[in-house]
Amino acid sequence: MSIFKNSSLSFIGLLAILMIVTVDVVAQEPEAERPAPRRPSFQRGPRIISPEIHPDNTVTFRLLAPNATRVTVSGEWMAGFGASEDLVKSDTGLWSLTIGPLQPEFYGYSFNVDGVQVLDPVNALIKRDGTRNASILFVPGKESDLYTVQNVPHGTLSKVWYESPTLNMTRRMYVYTPPGYENGDKNYPVFYLFHGAGGDEDAWTTLGLAPRILDNLIARGLAKPMIVVMTNGNPFIPAAPGEAPVLPPAEPTAAGPGNMGSGLFEESLVKDVVPFIEKHYRVIANTDNRAIAGLSMGGMQTQNITNNNPDMFSYIGIMSMGLMTRRDLGMDDSTQDFGGKLEALKKSGVKLYWIGCGKEDFLYASVQTLLDTLDQHDFTYTYRESTGGHTWANWRIYLSELAPLLFK
Amino acid sequence: MSIFKNSSLSFIGLLAILMIVTVDVVAQEPEAERPAPRRPSFQRGPRIISPEIHPDNTVTFRLLAPNATRVTVSGEWMAGFGASEDLVKSDTGLWSLTIGPLQPEFYGYSFNVDGVQVLDPVNALIKRDGTRNASILFVPGKESDLYTVQNVPHGTLSKVWYESPTLNMTRRMYVYTPPGYENGDKNYPVFYLFHGAGGDEDAWTTLGLAPRILDNLIARGLAKPMIVVMTNGNPFIPAAPGEAPVLPPAEPTAAGPGNMGSGLFEESLVKDVVPFIEKHYRVIANTDNRAIAGLSMGGMQTQNITNNNPDMFSYIGIMSMGLMTRRDLGMDDSTQDFGGKLEALKKSGVKLYWIGCGKEDFLYASVQTLLDTLDQHDFTYTYRESTGGHTWANWRIYLSELAPLLFK
Repeated sequence: MSIFKNSSLSFIGLLAILMIVTVDVVAQEPEAERPAPRRPSFQRGPRIISPEIHPDNTVTFRLLAPNATRVTVSGEWMAGFGASEDLVKSDTGLWSLTIGPLQPEFYGYSFNVDGVQVLDPVNALIKRDGTRNASILFVPGKESDLYTVQNVPHGTLSKVWYESPTLNMTRRMYVYTPPGYENGDKNYPVFYLFHGAGGDEDAWTTLGLAPRILDNLIARGLAKPMIVVMTNGNPFIPAAPGEAPVLPPAEPTAAGPGNMGSGLFEESLVKDVVPFIEKHYRVIANTDNRAIAGLSMGGMQTQNITNNNPDMFSYIGIMSMGLMTRRDLGMDDSTQDFGGKLEALKKSGVKLYWIGCGKEDFLYASVQTLLDTLDQHDFTYTYRESTGGHTWANWRIYLSELAPLLFK
Repeated sequence: MSIFKNSSLSFIGLLAILMIVTVDVVAQEPEAERPAPRRPSFQRGPRIISPEIHPDNTVTFRLLAPNATRVTVSGEWMAGFGASEDLVKSDTGLWSLTIGPLQPEFYGYSFNVDGVQVLDPVNALIKRDGTRNASILFVPGKESDLYTVQNVPHGTLSKVWYESPTLNMTRRMYVYTPPGYENGDKNYPVFYLFHGAGGDEDAWTTLGLAPRILDNLIARGLAKPMIVVMTNGNPFIPAAPGEAPVLPPAEPTAAGPGNMGSGLFEESLVKDVVPFIEKHYRVIANTDNRAIAGLSMGGMQTQNITNNNPDMFSYIGIMSMGLMTRRDLGMDDSTQDFGGKLEALKKSGVKLYWIGCGKEDFLYASVQTLLDTLDQHDFTYTYRESTGGHTWANWRIYLSELAPLLFK
């Protein structure tokens, strides 16, 4: 007896309908009767694969656009902002281009179709950098090995809300706890890691790939197991776009775009974030087990925090940021008595003052000023000069090199 | 003395350059000298706002496409798969369309420019459903009130990796712990919540907005504080796309697309997931404090799990799924001895058997079969018939209505 007395659809039929809304279906039917693979309505016809990564790391992009006059692709492997390459149209209206070989890396790219930016419609993976999105091209290999999810123990990544009395709001941050945290009773050192201007608390995960890098470094014994705290560094914004009540954009003030010169985020980090972490997580709550680093705006925040709290962090990292002054903004000058503050830091026994910058970074000159100033004070630091500029490619490399130096 | 002896850029200049890569800059200069707001290179000219939600909940879409012949918009507020509306071109090549008023809701939409799907380039917010992406349109109001991040205590959302000996892999899931979990020593009930075919462990967060719904229901005293566990229901896939080592797609087998008929996910839930959660979280580990629900494929999995483990869950929810058979797939029939299993469930004292389905759901007939079968066994259930079909709009509503019924 069939219980399907009221049902007009077979189970396979139902499953097929269930699947068609999102994935390919290859029906189990005799060859002659097998239908063409079904695609969502906006993408009928043969299945298009894009990007296709070939064994030699050349990459083929494809876009079906029969009515387009010109299709280009722009990607992070290209030199120069706004660079692009033309795709070539086939008889069927399929545009394609093979480039490379590319160095293994986690790239963003997008198409431009007759003047309109188009994310690759057959590529599910997208990354957001501030207000802009790009399709993801991950080229596997030695150089991007740390950026892949590998078959190693994984830490837990949590989106955590905390009260910030300093900023008078509830704010969101990411906390990475290392593999084994949940299973043990060990206490861990903590690494506070800051994004740059225009970014938010998502950035070090979605663009910086910090959880994967830490998982892989820890698995290889190259970094100590540690907690990593990734905050939102915009003092008047509680969380990433779409993840917080919509507030009116902060008016430009004397503290500069995003109020980044206000010092308020720095104050909240010290008064709100560190105490929250040290209360809620199993941490080793002392100077030698606190590290702090940031890129660009986050590098300025790192300097401000460590200059004003010389006894708090033993490990300090500055990525793509030099010596800055807030004098022009009418604020307390972050370089005010910089020398005196350096001396205090020196006296506090900082174990690592690490600076990374790319040769083509537009802040390169200010980084050299920072190095000169440190030299004048016989302040010990580690300087890592890379190729390239003000890019996540560099910041992922800096994290990969800095994390192994912490807490050792 | 200026320490900027080597620097050729002012601080404001540096900040402006830092910001330009992602956000608008309004320079603090005299009116006459004020430059036009700078935009990323792909979007020069006046700032384009899209979507713009007006006070009466009409919505204006805008896309700059001077070379396009036809631009349409498709969105989840439209009836029918593949429906669209035309935008109208201005002299400057800015296409626009005002629609609505729309019911407050969390919608997806995309443009189509001369046959190519285009996500809104000035809208940072995107949601992924399986392999497809859409720009997000959030219309605020009474009906979408539970879906917003409000000024209430927030739970923590964690991405957690766990060992699955049953599936022989390390897999990822989301765990929502309610507000207050970290600050106390209370134990909580647990709600296991499953996605549908083509989805993954991201779906109940990014599409179902479960953490926001739970935060808001708990804050209003409408739902009990609970832990919510959101797994990946595809037995041969460890995690969402891009978040796991790339495996070859599972071959279609006798267990159907995605091996959803294999029963393996169900087995792993019982043998791997529940024990992991009950070991690592402060839970009340008994039948009356376990709830389980799923949509579509996840509804089938819910039935399979509860049919085969009648003493495990007191609260059971089936969304957009009726009575299914795996017989055609050559597997153990999930409806095999369904009657006997229902009797066992009844005897175990299930407190809630909740079924939700839309009138236009393509599985509607199979849901009626399920209801008939339950009736034949005098099995008590709650049936919620909504308008609409097999959609996340319905599943968010079902979650909003089901969660308040749990653990009471």
